[in-house]
Amino acid sequence: MSRRGILFVMTGASGVGKDTIRQAALPEIDNLFYSISATTRTKRPGELHGKHYYFYDPASFQELIDNDGLLEHAEYVGDYYGTPSAPVKEALERGQDVLLELELVGAREVKRKLPEAIMLFIAPPNLIELDRRLRGRGTDSEQRIQKRLARAREEIKAVKEFDYVVVNDMLVTAVRDFCSIIYAERLRTRHLSPGDVANFLKEL
Amino acid sequence: MSRRGILFVMTGASGVGKDTIRQAALPEIDNLFYSISATTRTKRPGELHGKHYYFYDPASFQELIDNDGLLEHAEYVGDYYGTPSAPVKEALERGQDVLLELELVGAREVKRKLPEAIMLFIAPPNLIELDRRLRGRGTDSEQRIQKRLARAREEIKAVKEFDYVVVNDMLVTAVRDFCSIIYAERLRTRHLSPGDVANFLKEL
Repeated sequence: MSRRGILFVMTGASGVGKDTIRQAALPEIDNLFYSISATTRTKRPGELHGKHYYFYDPASFQELIDNDGLLEHAEYVGDYYGTPSAPVKEALERGQDVLLELELVGAREVKRKLPEAIMLFIAPPNLIELDRRLRGRGTDSEQRIQKRLARAREEIKAVKEFDYVVVNDMLVTAVRDFCSIIYAERLRTRHLSPGDVANFLKEL
Repeated sequence: MSRRGILFVMTGASGVGKDTIRQAALPEIDNLFYSISATTRTKRPGELHGKHYYFYDPASFQELIDNDGLLEHAEYVGDYYGTPSAPVKEALERGQDVLLELELVGAREVKRKLPEAIMLFIAPPNLIELDRRLRGRGTDSEQRIQKRLARAREEIKAVKEFDYVVVNDMLVTAVRDFCSIIYAERLRTRHLSPGDVANFLKEL
């Protein structure tokens, strides 16, 4: 099928396992471009510029905003996050599907600009479990954990704005569910071109 | 999630591999009730009443129609096929998903009566391959093969009436695609009840 790419936007609370699901799912899915975010937040140990995020200082990030170089940007617990526009639009135009991982505010902004985006929400089984995972990660202060839980509450209340919800209880099931959504959306007949239908009808 | 079941309707030309896909997929999918059709057509070798079809003589089939016992019925190359209503409606009401395998006319009738039905079309890679498969099956006369191909042409032209298309080129991919559609549709946030959202928000 020669079609425009499909844009998938994935949202979910910190600690819910978005990165783990994505890292397990991406090797199973061909032709899906994962768009790396720009951020002003401090690198965590092991994180690399251009692999996990594009790390910018606040002044350079502001320059990106001013030059209309971001599809969305949002502040989250004191740091800025944003999606560089050009690589996303180029991938969609050459027919590659794109996955964005965004906070709720950014996800809404992308949906407003690109209403054809398919919206996925990753939910924890409950906030008790999310609290446990955030503490287990051991990277955040108590104050930051409380901020993340407060944000998670607000995000979960917005779940109905999304097309799909994946509950990350058992990782293997969450990965299967995530992949299923990508595969299924690719099979929608709205993506069929007249050429595709002509191919099905081909006779000797 | 305590919700009403989802109705899936699967359509595709004779010989395209609907039965093979379904038989490979069903053991992978829990809570999916496959509704057996009623028919007046002659049993093929190995087919069993109540397993492959409910086989009826034309008079008994007419009685089912008259008593409003069929969700749809249609004539196909001289035989009648129909879907008994009661088991489908009961399964949906108890929250079980249901799969129907129908000819195009019947699929349209069900969609008209139950517009929430999710419509799947199984397409051959092309009609050259479908012709080869029909001949390989060795059950039909040349005249019947020509009728089936003519019907396949008409069905393929209606593919855009369906929500999803699965191309049965490689069986393993077609089965994966079929399962993905079922899984993905179950993850739609429209099925979330207020109770499901309350569960996500549960705290100590």
